[in-house]
Amino acid sequence: MAAAEIILADVRLPDGEIGDLRIAGGRIAEIGDGLVPLTGDAARVEAAGALVLPGLVDGHMHLDKTSTGTPWMPHQAGPDRMSRIETERTLRSSLPPVAERAANLVRLCIAHGTTAIRSHADVGPDIGISHVEALLEVRQRFAECVDIQIVAFPQYGVLRAPGTADLLAAALDAGADLLGGIDPIGIDGDLNGQLEILFSLADKKNVGVDIHLHDTGANGLSEIDAVTGRARSLGMQGRVTVSHGFCLGAAPEPVVAGLADAMATAGVSLVTHGGGASPLPPVKLLRARGVVVFAGNDDVRDPWSPYGEGDMLERAMLIAWRSGFRTDADLQVALDCASGAGKQALGMPASAIAVGDPAALFTVPAETPADAVARHPKRRLVLKQGRVVARDGVYAL
Amino acid sequence: MAAAEIILADVRLPDGEIGDLRIAGGRIAEIGDGLVPLTGDAARVEAAGALVLPGLVDGHMHLDKTSTGTPWMPHQAGPDRMSRIETERTLRSSLPPVAERAANLVRLCIAHGTTAIRSHADVGPDIGISHVEALLEVRQRFAECVDIQIVAFPQYGVLRAPGTADLLAAALDAGADLLGGIDPIGIDGDLNGQLEILFSLADKKNVGVDIHLHDTGANGLSEIDAVTGRARSLGMQGRVTVSHGFCLGAAPEPVVAGLADAMATAGVSLVTHGGGASPLPPVKLLRARGVVVFAGNDDVRDPWSPYGEGDMLERAMLIAWRSGFRTDADLQVALDCASGAGKQALGMPASAIAVGDPAALFTVPAETPADAVARHPKRRLVLKQGRVVARDGVYAL
Repeated sequence: MAAAEIILADVRLPDGEIGDLRIAGGRIAEIGDGLVPLTGDAARVEAAGALVLPGLVDGHMHLDKTSTGTPWMPHQAGPDRMSRIETERTLRSSLPPVAERAANLVRLCIAHGTTAIRSHADVGPDIGISHVEALLEVRQRFAECVDIQIVAFPQYGVLRAPGTADLLAAALDAGADLLGGIDPIGIDGDLNGQLEILFSLADKKNVGVDIHLHDTGANGLSEIDAVTGRARSLGMQGRVTVSHGFCLGAAPEPVVAGLADAMATAGVSLVTHGGGASPLPPVKLLRARGVVVFAGNDDVRDPWSPYGEGDMLERAMLIAWRSGFRTDADLQVALDCASGAGKQALGMPASAIAVGDPAALFTVPAETPADAVARHPKRRLVLKQGRVVARDGVYAL
Repeated sequence: MAAAEIILADVRLPDGEIGDLRIAGGRIAEIGDGLVPLTGDAARVEAAGALVLPGLVDGHMHLDKTSTGTPWMPHQAGPDRMSRIETERTLRSSLPPVAERAANLVRLCIAHGTTAIRSHADVGPDIGISHVEALLEVRQRFAECVDIQIVAFPQYGVLRAPGTADLLAAALDAGADLLGGIDPIGIDGDLNGQLEILFSLADKKNVGVDIHLHDTGANGLSEIDAVTGRARSLGMQGRVTVSHGFCLGAAPEPVVAGLADAMATAGVSLVTHGGGASPLPPVKLLRARGVVVFAGNDDVRDPWSPYGEGDMLERAMLIAWRSGFRTDADLQVALDCASGAGKQALGMPASAIAVGDPAALFTVPAETPADAVARHPKRRLVLKQGRVVARDGVYAL
């Protein structure tokens, strides 16, 4: 349901000019000075000179894992991936239902200006496709505030967890949008075994693939090469994503450049959360060679990571800071990772602050887009489908 | 001037209990339930269950460099240190006076819960000791809100910029607290030449030393070794700091461990801003071997870095995230870097939230200290010398 007309008054446009936006029919209908309502039920919303930017895209979340909204839970897992998988299994039964926790985080995401999310949802023998079903429910509930893509994610491996391949197919039939995967070598010990199952299923069901690759060194590089090769041979241009790809942050530049060229040719994108203690793939090098690099918060307050509140402007800052970005142009690269490039990778139409664009946008008390990244102040207003969905950092519906 | 009595009601103490604090004479006079004023002019301030923590310590700033409070200025320097030095020199004349810009940033620091700062102030042939004098003025102006240490910092080198040694001595005579230095090899091309000048002056004037070491690899390691050796031989235990020490983030563990042991023995501390794109020294390893590791924001919106608003809880998060910290104990290590360890390195008495401790503290809507780091929400109240100096993220005096 698109809202009635809104005059968003005194916004700072991305080019620095101050003006008004007329929002109507869920879109930016007019940009100008001193705009007056054309309809009787129009609302005038003061932006007080705050910068307006297109809605943010969180390209990699785990909405089903978060404990957002529940009492603080100290991190309990050991230092490796397998211990976190096991700890998560143990803790799960003591937490509120997936849909409740996911909704708590979705509200925070919206409050921070996110208008599109790609979330993985665990699929596996113990939980079946229940997490996918929970996120489908959450997607429906917040359909007017945020676009949610769901990736059926085999957290426990595909070959290593018998029955998972059938569950992935069932998750897609239930409504998941993409097929996930995880470290074919590190988890399943069979690079081509896992990829054959995933890509043949994706091809059969006509869905994209978004595969977690944490494996380091030669294993990680051979996984990216193999994923890219399958994307190319199946003609899946623009529909395959490598999540993390930490190995690209530690490999020699010529190796990364070669893989980047292959990824660009095959239309394979990369999503990053900035690395933290892991090597960060070279964002600018990858983009310069044509790879769509976008950003996601990944784990938010869950058994994998204690950090964050789902803020993609803060995430853009983290990626920029880790990348040594200082110039406005570079800070805008980081912002694009959290916005335009995310839309491209998610297959959404490009949009800016221009007449005809969807009114999926936010205001922030910053002088320029670079300033918005560098300081990432609290969002003032968030609009989606032409309605105000958050105000002063709080979900408003 | 310590304020009159304050009852800070319904705070969450660091151990999780809810209680009241009686603040009187600039100190925590009592902790209990349902405390009532003992004096006629007492104020009751509601904390509404927010967590109370000791004031934060920003152990490495450049207050004189910031452009906080002036219009956004895109980063203009080239990618290396020398180009930033030259760019800064060029830009300086177009900016408001040092004291004005520094005060703008100090207000933000206070608003974020910082109650003590160590700031470097450039000293050099073109500016003389004018930046030190400006920060002395700022220190005086904010004396009731924040403790400020000033380091006379030879940004352009000591040997490389003739006359600087005399200026450093003059800066100390004018009131600077410590002597700074910078990359004796990388900037001056003479390891022992710069250190001999610095340490003999520090010894003569009976002040501490805080030296910027950005040099990488063997140069950086030999600098740390030489600084540590001089600190030990001069008996400067607890009065010498290595700023950054990026080389410790890239050296083999046995090398780092050896230097850490030497630093611990000599009482040489390390301050970090978390590294960004540079290697981060191993915080836990250094601390485990007895090195005082503390934290600072370093450059805030200046010709060196576009980031930040002087928030030391966010800085603790950055250090934790870059270090791969996840457990509550580890997140508290990062918080300690921004708080207790900072006090120790600055030679301030230890303080917590206990009867008799100085009422230099803040409240934050978080459940636990670890949560405060992970989410670093806006500070609600900041008290210094028993008075409320900031409220809801805004400087209040």
